[in-house]
Amino acid sequence: MTDALSDAAELTRAIRALIPIFEPMGLEVVEAERTSVAARLPVEPNVNHVGSVYAGSLFTVAEVLGGLFASTSLVLEGGVPLVKSLQIDFRRPASTSVVARARLTEDEIARILRDAEATGRGEFVLEAEVTDETGAVVATTRGTYQLRRL
Amino acid sequence: MTDALSDAAELTRAIRALIPIFEPMGLEVVEAERTSVAARLPVEPNVNHVGSVYAGSLFTVAEVLGGLFASTSLVLEGGVPLVKSLQIDFRRPASTSVVARARLTEDEIARILRDAEATGRGEFVLEAEVTDETGAVVATTRGTYQLRRL
Repeated sequence: MTDALSDAAELTRAIRALIPIFEPMGLEVVEAERTSVAARLPVEPNVNHVGSVYAGSLFTVAEVLGGLFASTSLVLEGGVPLVKSLQIDFRRPASTSVVARARLTEDEIARILRDAEATGRGEFVLEAEVTDETGAVVATTRGTYQLRRL
Repeated sequence: MTDALSDAAELTRAIRALIPIFEPMGLEVVEAERTSVAARLPVEPNVNHVGSVYAGSLFTVAEVLGGLFASTSLVLEGGVPLVKSLQIDFRRPASTSVVARARLTEDEIARILRDAEATGRGEFVLEAEVTDETGAVVATTRGTYQLRRL
């Protein structure tokens, strides 16, 4: 296993311990880099009334990305990531497993950490795309988060 | 058990069978009227990294309301409720069980059913409030749904 893969597997275990509902959903971290994170969900435990991935599970696989950055680059002693609001647009039904991915630039990371140090709240906006196994975009999200120093 | 309570319990069983992830979340229908529906979530299985109810579970307890109306008043042969987009604002952490509630007027119900019959898509906007056991609003949502005739 490469370091990157072992980091992702370790982060999967850590977030499932912190937020137990991720376990029955089968939520996995598949990328945990400083500027890019991604998470994956299988269909089966998340199936809905029309045989595609349930809206709340699509929300979750995208929402969690903001928190993952607090383990990769938005690392601050006593810092906790919190989501303040999120808009999700469902583009088409997902009938396969899905991957959500989001990116932050190094400049944005530095700015968020500076704000969190200075004021206790580093606010940031994260846009994520959720794709199915064919690469089709099934949902997009725009979330506002805070890296809070508690 | 009154009819209303037995309807809610029956609908809880039905939606958990259709969308299995509701079961580990402990999602329950607590009101299933023509113009008002409500759902409830306990804290324990939905706890997050700071000891309050996870954002994705708050999303779910509110999002599901649009679908519940398809069993109470938006009843159409071959009709399926789908969520198209949803904005959620997290107002404060929820450290108790939560209830989400939404209402539709009889005029709006008639309009949605007319549109679904005529065009195959009855679109509607639902605003929901999620409250904790003290009555404090922990989240608000605004979702756009379609009653689709498949």
